[in-house]
Amino acid sequence: MHSEISATLAALRQQQPVVHNITNLVVTNTTANALLAIGASPVMAHAPEEMADMVSIASALVINTGTPSETQRAAIRKAIQAAREQGKPWILDPVGAGATPYRLQLNTELLDLKPAAIRGNASEILTLLTGKPTGRGVDTDSSSDDALNETLSYLQQRAAQLNTVLAVTGATDYIIDGQRIAKITNGHPMMAKVTGTGCTATAMTGAFLASSNDPWLAVTASIACLGIAGEKAAFAAKGPGSLQMHLLDELYLLDVETIQARLSLEVLI
Amino acid sequence: MHSEISATLAALRQQQPVVHNITNLVVTNTTANALLAIGASPVMAHAPEEMADMVSIASALVINTGTPSETQRAAIRKAIQAAREQGKPWILDPVGAGATPYRLQLNTELLDLKPAAIRGNASEILTLLTGKPTGRGVDTDSSSDDALNETLSYLQQRAAQLNTVLAVTGATDYIIDGQRIAKITNGHPMMAKVTGTGCTATAMTGAFLASSNDPWLAVTASIACLGIAGEKAAFAAKGPGSLQMHLLDELYLLDVETIQARLSLEVLI
Amino acid sequence: MHSEISATLAALRQQQPVVHNITNLVVTNTTANALLAIGASPVMAHAPEEMADMVSIASALVINTGTPSETQRAAIRKAIQAAREQGKPWILDPVGAGATPYRLQLNTELLDLKPAAIRGNASEILTLLTGKPTGRGVDTDSSSDDALNETLSYLQQRAAQLNTVLAVTGATDYIIDGQRIAKITNGHPMMAKVTGTGCTATAMTGAFLASSNDPWLAVTASIACLGIAGEKAAFAAKGPGSLQMHLLDELYLLDVETIQARLSLEVLI
Repeated sequence: MHSEISATLAALRQQQPVVHNITNLVVTNTTANALLAIGASPVMAHAPEEMADMVSIASALVINTGTPSETQRAAIRKAIQAAREQGKPWILDPVGAGATPYRLQLNTELLDLKPAAIRGNASEILTLLTGKPTGRGVDTDSSSDDALNETLSYLQQRAAQLNTVLAVTGATDYIIDGQRIAKITNGHPMMAKVTGTGCTATAMTGAFLASSNDPWLAVTASIACLGIAGEKAAFAAKGPGSLQMHLLDELYLLDVETIQARLSLEVLI
Repeated sequence: MHSEISATLAALRQQQPVVHNITNLVVTNTTANALLAIGASPVMAHAPEEMADMVSIASALVINTGTPSETQRAAIRKAIQAAREQGKPWILDPVGAGATPYRLQLNTELLDLKPAAIRGNASEILTLLTGKPTGRGVDTDSSSDDALNETLSYLQQRAAQLNTVLAVTGATDYIIDGQRIAKITNGHPMMAKVTGTGCTATAMTGAFLASSNDPWLAVTASIACLGIAGEKAAFAAKGPGSLQMHLLDELYLLDVETIQARLSLEVLI
Repeated sequence: MHSEISATLAALRQQQPVVHNITNLVVTNTTANALLAIGASPVMAHAPEEMADMVSIASALVINTGTPSETQRAAIRKAIQAAREQGKPWILDPVGAGATPYRLQLNTELLDLKPAAIRGNASEILTLLTGKPTGRGVDTDSSSDDALNETLSYLQQRAAQLNTVLAVTGATDYIIDGQRIAKITNGHPMMAKVTGTGCTATAMTGAFLASSNDPWLAVTASIACLGIAGEKAAFAAKGPGSLQMHLLDELYLLDVETIQARLSLEVLI
């Protein structure tokens, strides 16, 4: 897969897609910087009055509900409507989907609006798909192989039904559509000590979706690239402060050789 | 005190408390990262609709009024009410309390809602407690010993009356409750060149309050840990940009030996 | 010019002016840190209720419309009105002025309120001045010398008419008032891979405007200082993550010798 992933990254860098983000207040700066570092052109805007116009100059839309508000909700609806009318992919990051009923209701509404991809941790994705707060389920460390296989089978069925790509990220990442599952074990545990690495994965995925005709490959490439850059950053880091800095450098420096040397990916089906 | 402080930090890291922050737009990323680095689990959210639910999954609440707005004010009220009903500590950071009448009124209202601790610089704390904008008063460099003793005596009396812990931070930090005063001289002047180090102190204090039954010890441990990490970061830094990065690394790496070697703390009473 | 620029920076550091910023959600942290690093004292606040009071304690006001909203629009109006009544300079950064009609209308309204300076890239400045979205026009790489001269002549005429200073930044920066044009070629292409370097230029310009009686010199000094610090940061950086960190360090460390050695500035008229 490393050559397909490198080719997708090359297409992204060649196209420099404009990615419009409606995201949470914690990661506005870091996700814009990650998009620039990987080669995309970020737009961060949230006024309902300009959502349709802003989407019209973008190639993909990223919706992250980490710090929702009623004004943001109105902007999200307008932006998604514009993306759908213009045939542009949008991706959902249902941050903390099960943390409060307010979040779950908001994200459930958004699920109906046909995201091209959804990225979250196992708990967020399962909560969103089942409609009720739930435990992890896809954590390979805490589940038996049987339980894992059953969960993956359920996720694949739902991905097919929703015509979307599910990116379930954690120590092991699973990228799932109706036909294929990629299992990625790049990355480093210290990445969880930097706020918003998941949000960065989602923002980058918007850029990859804008640069490929195969959504599953686009999401797989995005998650793999972040994992590879993240593990290189972690090896160079003393702690999470330097990891955050090195991560942007490594996204910027990521090349064919590094992807080939480090990619740890298995296609399961 | 170094062993009590190390034990409090160890408890924090063992419990990984969820700390809910309603904070200003400048420090959302840096305070979330500081909480992760020290070992806590940050939540940043501000929709009034989900405040009670979010507080119910947290162990402490941090309120920072650095960029107030009417919507945030509504969220703050709901969150504090939930914290009080659920018996969870909340801490107030009255940023720029005396800068405008709007801020002073907002912070004065919050003072009535029984914060477990209040952290600010001398000017902010004295403005909040006296209800009128005021000069520094606790600045050991510019006051005589007599003036300092008088101010500390006033602060201790108010801390007793309000049943709170006051953390007055600056070149020298004073942690004051009705019985005890800790005087801490860790830290480095270059920390004042990084925006939001005070806000980081407050956010961290939420995590320590969630991890100890002695609020004064919790606040003292928090301020001491930040001061020690900050001075180590400053020694390694070329300027404020690298200080900000090293600070997160040093919070992450902080250990018993470093605390023992560097703690500069005196219990005055 | 290097001695005038160094003198202006020295004045800024001596005065430590309070600069009030109403800015976008992406750069709140980084622009506050840049202001601290260069020697100013940032205030970031946006509640309409406190705008007049906040402006009264500031020496300059920075308005950045990168993430506009109706609430922010109300705050901006109140802040500018206060600045004008109090005779304090304000500076406009019309981020993405032509991206949507909503932005163009907002920025056009603000243009009528007599900014002391306006900073943007060529597309933003020309869109703002002509009232319609436009191509670059001042890009020395893509235009003939004749086209460039014609554009500069137009900009100078408008700067005179509006009694403002125009800072058109890019690979080459032009600082234009009714009498003078400075052409600056400091900086480094990698600065464009860090979000908000333009916003940082604008925020810093607020601090320089507060520290000089010659607005054209103030804006020129600000853009030159950022360019010099940015190119030093880029030489030390592995990628955009480390550039962002080094930039704050270099702003903090910037001195007379570095300005003298590196300044690449030509006064055209």
